[in-house]
Amino acid sequence: MEDFLFLLGPIGAAAALLFSLIMARRVLRESEGNDRMKEIAQHIRTGANAYLKRQYKGVAKFFVVMVIIMAVLAFMGYVNQFTPVAFLTGGVFSALSGFFGMKIATAANSRTANAAEHSLNKGLRVAFSAGSVMGFVVVGLGCLDMSIWYYFLRFWFRDLDPAIQAQQIASAMLTFGMGASAMALFARVGGGIFTKAADVGADLVGKVEAGIPEDDPRNPAVIADNVGDNVGDVAGMGADLYESYAGARLSACALAVSAGFGFGGMAVPIALSAIGIFASIIGSFFVSTKENASQRSLLSALRRGTYISGILVAVAAFFLIRAVFGMDQIGLYFAILSGLLAGILVGYFTEYYTSDTYKPTRNLAETSETGPATIVIGGISLGMMSTAIPVIIIAISILASFFLSGGAANYNAGLYGIGLSAVAMLSTLGITLATDAYGPVADNAGGIAEMAGLGEEVRERTDALDSLGNTTAATGKGFAIGSAALTALALIAAYIEQVRVIKPDFAFDLSVLSPTVLIGLFVGAVLPFVFAAMTMSSVGRAAQSIVVEVRRQFKEIKGIMDGTGKPDYERCVDMCTRSAQKEMIPPSLLAIVVPVVVGLILGVNGVAGMLAGSTITGFVLAIMMSNAGGAWDNAKKYIEGGHHGGKGSDCHKAAVVGDTVGDPFKDTSGPSINILIKLLSTVSIVFVTLVANFSIF
Amino acid sequence: MEDFLFLLGPIGAAAALLFSLIMARRVLRESEGNDRMKEIAQHIRTGANAYLKRQYKGVAKFFVVMVIIMAVLAFMGYVNQFTPVAFLTGGVFSALSGFFGMKIATAANSRTANAAEHSLNKGLRVAFSAGSVMGFVVVGLGCLDMSIWYYFLRFWFRDLDPAIQAQQIASAMLTFGMGASAMALFARVGGGIFTKAADVGADLVGKVEAGIPEDDPRNPAVIADNVGDNVGDVAGMGADLYESYAGARLSACALAVSAGFGFGGMAVPIALSAIGIFASIIGSFFVSTKENASQRSLLSALRRGTYISGILVAVAAFFLIRAVFGMDQIGLYFAILSGLLAGILVGYFTEYYTSDTYKPTRNLAETSETGPATIVIGGISLGMMSTAIPVIIIAISILASFFLSGGAANYNAGLYGIGLSAVAMLSTLGITLATDAYGPVADNAGGIAEMAGLGEEVRERTDALDSLGNTTAATGKGFAIGSAALTALALIAAYIEQVRVIKPDFAFDLSVLSPTVLIGLFVGAVLPFVFAAMTMSSVGRAAQSIVVEVRRQFKEIKGIMDGTGKPDYERCVDMCTRSAQKEMIPPSLLAIVVPVVVGLILGVNGVAGMLAGSTITGFVLAIMMSNAGGAWDNAKKYIEGGHHGGKGSDCHKAAVVGDTVGDPFKDTSGPSINILIKLLSTVSIVFVTLVANFSIF
Repeated sequence: MEDFLFLLGPIGAAAALLFSLIMARRVLRESEGNDRMKEIAQHIRTGANAYLKRQYKGVAKFFVVMVIIMAVLAFMGYVNQFTPVAFLTGGVFSALSGFFGMKIATAANSRTANAAEHSLNKGLRVAFSAGSVMGFVVVGLGCLDMSIWYYFLRFWFRDLDPAIQAQQIASAMLTFGMGASAMALFARVGGGIFTKAADVGADLVGKVEAGIPEDDPRNPAVIADNVGDNVGDVAGMGADLYESYAGARLSACALAVSAGFGFGGMAVPIALSAIGIFASIIGSFFVSTKENASQRSLLSALRRGTYISGILVAVAAFFLIRAVFGMDQIGLYFAILSGLLAGILVGYFTEYYTSDTYKPTRNLAETSETGPATIVIGGISLGMMSTAIPVIIIAISILASFFLSGGAANYNAGLYGIGLSAVAMLSTLGITLATDAYGPVADNAGGIAEMAGLGEEVRERTDALDSLGNTTAATGKGFAIGSAALTALALIAAYIEQVRVIKPDFAFDLSVLSPTVLIGLFVGAVLPFVFAAMTMSSVGRAAQSIVVEVRRQFKEIKGIMDGTGKPDYERCVDMCTRSAQKEMIPPSLLAIVVPVVVGLILGVNGVAGMLAGSTITGFVLAIMMSNAGGAWDNAKKYIEGGHHGGKGSDCHKAAVVGDTVGDPFKDTSGPSINILIKLLSTVSIVFVTLVANFSIF
Repeated sequence: MEDFLFLLGPIGAAAALLFSLIMARRVLRESEGNDRMKEIAQHIRTGANAYLKRQYKGVAKFFVVMVIIMAVLAFMGYVNQFTPVAFLTGGVFSALSGFFGMKIATAANSRTANAAEHSLNKGLRVAFSAGSVMGFVVVGLGCLDMSIWYYFLRFWFRDLDPAIQAQQIASAMLTFGMGASAMALFARVGGGIFTKAADVGADLVGKVEAGIPEDDPRNPAVIADNVGDNVGDVAGMGADLYESYAGARLSACALAVSAGFGFGGMAVPIALSAIGIFASIIGSFFVSTKENASQRSLLSALRRGTYISGILVAVAAFFLIRAVFGMDQIGLYFAILSGLLAGILVGYFTEYYTSDTYKPTRNLAETSETGPATIVIGGISLGMMSTAIPVIIIAISILASFFLSGGAANYNAGLYGIGLSAVAMLSTLGITLATDAYGPVADNAGGIAEMAGLGEEVRERTDALDSLGNTTAATGKGFAIGSAALTALALIAAYIEQVRVIKPDFAFDLSVLSPTVLIGLFVGAVLPFVFAAMTMSSVGRAAQSIVVEVRRQFKEIKGIMDGTGKPDYERCVDMCTRSAQKEMIPPSLLAIVVPVVVGLILGVNGVAGMLAGSTITGFVLAIMMSNAGGAWDNAKKYIEGGHHGGKGSDCHKAAVVGDTVGDPFKDTSGPSINILIKLLSTVSIVFVTLVANFSIF
């Protein structure tokens, strides 16, 4: 039985990768359009590749250093023997997720624009297919990485007693989370800085100072802006969600062992993910729409796919749990249900707070009437207010998962339930991520349509696709944050279990009033704030340099404005790349160094406090920043749609200020916090032996 | 020995109140200046009185309802028998602190302006004397309230065994914290909404649209703006710090009992406060300056007083601890020292981040070069970054207080040490608050000088005084936040002790990984965000109505601009008052209802988690909001001082946007969060019996 369930891992992986291959071929079969379109797409592709190359080079250096440190520590017995290699594979697979996602996205943008020349439905199909490639590559690689490790470790520890064997396998696998998280953080932060520096720089000089429209080919930063959509929203997100996906499953496996469920318990998260892959594949066949579809019906086309996948998982999971545990532990099924439901609800409320079809964003648009200051205050307060409901949803989901899984009688079973709910939330990641990654492709397609001077009708279609992308991106972000919170909690629980494994007689004092825990909580709570500050000022500095460069080009290159001179796109791309590489280092180091330092000073209890503090505050801050940013963006679009004076009015100018403030909120700092909170946990897990043996307190 | 120390309570109270009486007479002896000045001062006074009258009426209703509820619960045995009366006295004394402070501030503003006609030093003396009245009224009433209760309860429980007696007294006294906190929250939130609605309203229409200077008598909201300085910054702050002062001492007394230090331990916080009063009186004699003093020497004049007081307390506390506990427990002395030091350091770093003599604010001013969006992003990121050092300072102070007080051997002694460090930080409140309350008086004096058309030289002097006020206000705020964090922690510890008192066999599970604690942490973390959102949107709504009203007056009342028509000041004051009264209710109710609801659902463990979560996140968020606001304000002033194009430049306009965003940050939401986190604790303490008996989990 278990053996079959474990086998679902590689089968699911194969199915996902095959499906993404089919989708990729479907995209590549389409025509790239006319020569101008090809040329622009080529520019974007070259920029994105140059960025990735530089990034991977920089990150590779970091990985080499880390692997050496880990190898030394492993040799001395202070980290698990598999850590160096596991760390490396986690990083490589996470990077591959981003890489493939970006490859297809930069191939699909011109094709989507071209398809939109024929019909809206065709445009949607191409963009969504490209998104699917990304979604299924992430889940496919996730399942593959874990399955390889599982079978390898099972073979390695073949002579051990099954209980010990399960524990050793779970412990060893946990360490590859850190590699995935570290890579994801670099990708998210670097990509986030790139995209927003280019965006802010292009907007501030192009739109505001020179008065030319968005995506105008005369703007020297326009290609960088489009490249940014790919490296930030696609490559960054791919690595990010790969890491969530891995973290949730790894921690659930570890918790299965500590709850006494052994291999059966470990098989469930793996099988559940495989079920999710098949459900997502089925769901994705339901995504299509009629020509002249309204935005609402486009949205419901995408939703239909997600909901169908969710329902399929919900049904199959019941049989899975019954098969593994029998009806005695059927409560675990409710943990799975609560995770699935919480994901959908958090996504829904993210949309409620950020879409201009609902009151909050419309009210926000109204505050533009009294100028930029009031819309900024309004957005921040909207963001802060929007944190309440997701917290309540996650809280109820935690309570339900814990107690329905029998946590009152078997504490660790309750924690395993929380872990399973995180896995469940992420089980349909294939299709959720597809609808999410679809956004930047549509956005780029719009840019290409504009730059290539395609007809009004085409632009309208790509606009409809793009605007929908904003909504799905918001939902996707809510979902990423929700799963990050649950995953981080599961990782904290796994951390505690690791301490128990290496020091069975360790005297825990995890009381919130214990001074070390308390201080850990304080330090943990402040980390997301400091991290957000660092990433925001990085964007500020990087954008500043682009502003200066664009101004220079407008001044020095003759004839840009009347089209006789050609702006130097590459220089802007190059500057963004350099800035992003330089600026991503300090915040990433913060996330890696602090847990070790805090651990060596405050000990295991302090680390637990720090992890709890950062998870909780990070969750709240990430929602606040993402939602405020999303609402500002859509309030601006709402005004551009003809409300409060429309484009060019004072209200619109105020809304542009709000939107610009929101850019680093929603695309750099906010989503990076998700990764931060998990990276802190995975780093702590890797260095647990060191900390448990050498801390001051 | 103890009896003598307790006696220091009423003696200190008498000394403080007497000293404030002398200071008040010194202020009132001064001339109010010419008729025009008298008239303006009268307008401000009338407005402030009207506001306070309405506020107290509204709050009185709330208190009546609460007292009835508490009386019923007390009758049923679910709250302490003294709660209804204690709640009432806490509220009344807190209100009195605000009331007296505002009375003297509105009397001193014109007198300061008039004194500044003679010399800078004279202006400083008058303004600082007025600040001293407020400072010493707060500490005097604080000592008085507590002493009355102490002697009354000692008499009431005279037949009990001393150990039980001490416990009963401490428990009963703790309940008056809630009254003080509730009153403080109403005063801070109501005053904060009033002042910022008036300020933003006056600026947006007056300065930005009509192009008239600040404090111009033609602006219909100008009187409301000046009234706001008094009701927000004076009355609100008085009630706020009264509450901190009370909370710190009450929780230290309760922790003394649980640590087994009995009456001796209870006497120390009381004696320490009395010592602080005498030290502050002595320190305040050292505040004076030469004519033509630079801003730096003005500042050092104010600092000198504070530092001398601090040193005196540091010396005297050694003998106090040695006398009560002998050299065995001398570690408690280091807890006191760490509290004193932490207060000074947090204040210093607040100044570092918000004063334009340092790099952060100067860099912020530079971001105005690329417009409002970048200065807003810059300010938020400055605010977030500025949270790190205070957290580290408070963390070290907690660790030091706990372990030096012997917390490793006697856990409760360690908590008592933390309580004492909070008391120590607040011991010199008399003079710290004097330097803080001096600010709004100087600000108002400047306004009166402007409106009454006093000479350029006078205005320059009041400007120098006012600008100094901004720095001391920043330091004062940092100090208020630091003490709030320590006080809140001491209150949480006291809460846990109360549970032990009423249910000695209660099985605590305070682990950060226990689901109820965890959810409590989540809910607690989200509260400051929701609270800040509510108060910010309140300011937005209130300001909006003032904007509309000022625009209306400019349009409908003929001749305002050329001085032949008179604006209707009172209507603006009245509208601000109404808005503030209406808007302060929902956020205040949130703070009172949530702890009870969370308690009834999640139980005692969940409440502990919630309190820890809100304290930690609230601390960080309050610092972020206060510092961002302060930095924007000073960046604007720095630009007005002739940098980056000076007044009227595009940079200046961008900086005005930043400043306006910062207004509710630093004067409404930020400081109110300090009170929120303590009110949550005091409410939980009052309803502990109810929660311990009837919770679901």
